[in-house]
Amino acid sequence: MVPFMKRAKVRLFVDQPLGQGQSVALSREQAHYLLGVMRLGVGDLVALFNGVDGEWQAEVAEAGKKRGILVCVERSASLRMPPDLWLLFAPIKKVRTDFIVEKAAEMGAARIFPVQTAFTNSERTRRDRLQAHAVEAAEQCGGTYVPEVADIARLDRVLAEWPADRHLMFCDEGLAGEGAGLPHVKGPWAILIGPEGGFSDDERARLVRMEQAHAVSLGPRILRADTAAVAALTVWQQALGDW
Amino acid sequence: MVPFMKRAKVRLFVDQPLGQGQSVALSREQAHYLLGVMRLGVGDLVALFNGVDGEWQAEVAEAGKKRGILVCVERSASLRMPPDLWLLFAPIKKVRTDFIVEKAAEMGAARIFPVQTAFTNSERTRRDRLQAHAVEAAEQCGGTYVPEVADIARLDRVLAEWPADRHLMFCDEGLAGEGAGLPHVKGPWAILIGPEGGFSDDERARLVRMEQAHAVSLGPRILRADTAAVAALTVWQQALGDW
Repeated sequence: MVPFMKRAKVRLFVDQPLGQGQSVALSREQAHYLLGVMRLGVGDLVALFNGVDGEWQAEVAEAGKKRGILVCVERSASLRMPPDLWLLFAPIKKVRTDFIVEKAAEMGAARIFPVQTAFTNSERTRRDRLQAHAVEAAEQCGGTYVPEVADIARLDRVLAEWPADRHLMFCDEGLAGEGAGLPHVKGPWAILIGPEGGFSDDERARLVRMEQAHAVSLGPRILRADTAAVAALTVWQQALGDW
Repeated sequence: MVPFMKRAKVRLFVDQPLGQGQSVALSREQAHYLLGVMRLGVGDLVALFNGVDGEWQAEVAEAGKKRGILVCVERSASLRMPPDLWLLFAPIKKVRTDFIVEKAAEMGAARIFPVQTAFTNSERTRRDRLQAHAVEAAEQCGGTYVPEVADIARLDRVLAEWPADRHLMFCDEGLAGEGAGLPHVKGPWAILIGPEGGFSDDERARLVRMEQAHAVSLGPRILRADTAAVAALTVWQQALGDW
């Protein structure tokens, strides 16, 4: 068993199988990061996870200039899936969109879903960039799972095909201060954060008609979308999630 | 009465008295922003607040190149004080420190208090810069109050002189997943967010000894300090605050 004090300080997501004695070849970027930037050498430990096999302590077995090989020594955590919770949000300025993805991963959303609303300003999101942020957040927060970032889709179409069994908590700044609470029903859930400028009348009317939808207030002040995402995830996790 | 549709789209904090017919001279920066950047002219409305007199709709009465005068027309909101809640946190990287201040203002903290812990990396904070962020957040979120940003102080000294009647909720990543909850006691409160790298053994021992202190868990994942600040403020506001 690897003594606790010797355990890895660096966590890395790898898209490869992990298991006792399994060797893992690093990509060029990973080798550069671990062996160049973090200056790890043969015998040093790294914590690996792949979203499936839990977390493994792996030892550096080969350290070259542009390549490296790790070997899994011991499983240090089992896979911990987040609750079946999606976070839908309308992309905003780049930095804040990145923050929302990071926060969703830290707070334990299972799927991150950018949606284009009537009042969404920014229409372009790069799924690969956002997915990389989710990976980095999972590495940082000690998670063993990386939420999937979906391609952006139009909110009206997403709601038109909304799964019958998935509850939807939506946070509307029009509700500021009104006391709607979260119903304590189990099952698949999603949180929808309103765009800056709020929902359109059509969107709000459609949400109000949906049986699966529940309006929840996030207090008397108007929150920015990234603040609202963390606050809404906290409300949900406390009531129905894994906190 | 000012018709709702005509109401101001711009909100501005001013450090001057507000009241019926009161004229307010803009600073050079404010004149540049309102008259230059936002292109307001004589007769246009601006929402003003000063942290004391509520929110006032004010009309541009004079618009020069580097100066402008507004006249208060009607009070559009009364002063709404946040709960008596302080947020203590250890400054981190600049952008994230700015975010914590912004989020604290949006979430309704009354006082923002940077503290230097044993494991705080960054020792330099500029109070005036952070205070400006709190003002901007208050302008954005529709608040009529601006939380005060205190000068940074050493955590051990702050705790040594801690007010007997102020409860302290501290969030410790060492608690991840353990179920300590927030006691529902009213009165003055503060939230202390642990630094990246956690509290030192001395700090934790001192906190545990304090009668006013209550450890609260923020779930099984390790949250970055800015995420933890919003999550902790949400937990507190839901249980004891103005949500």
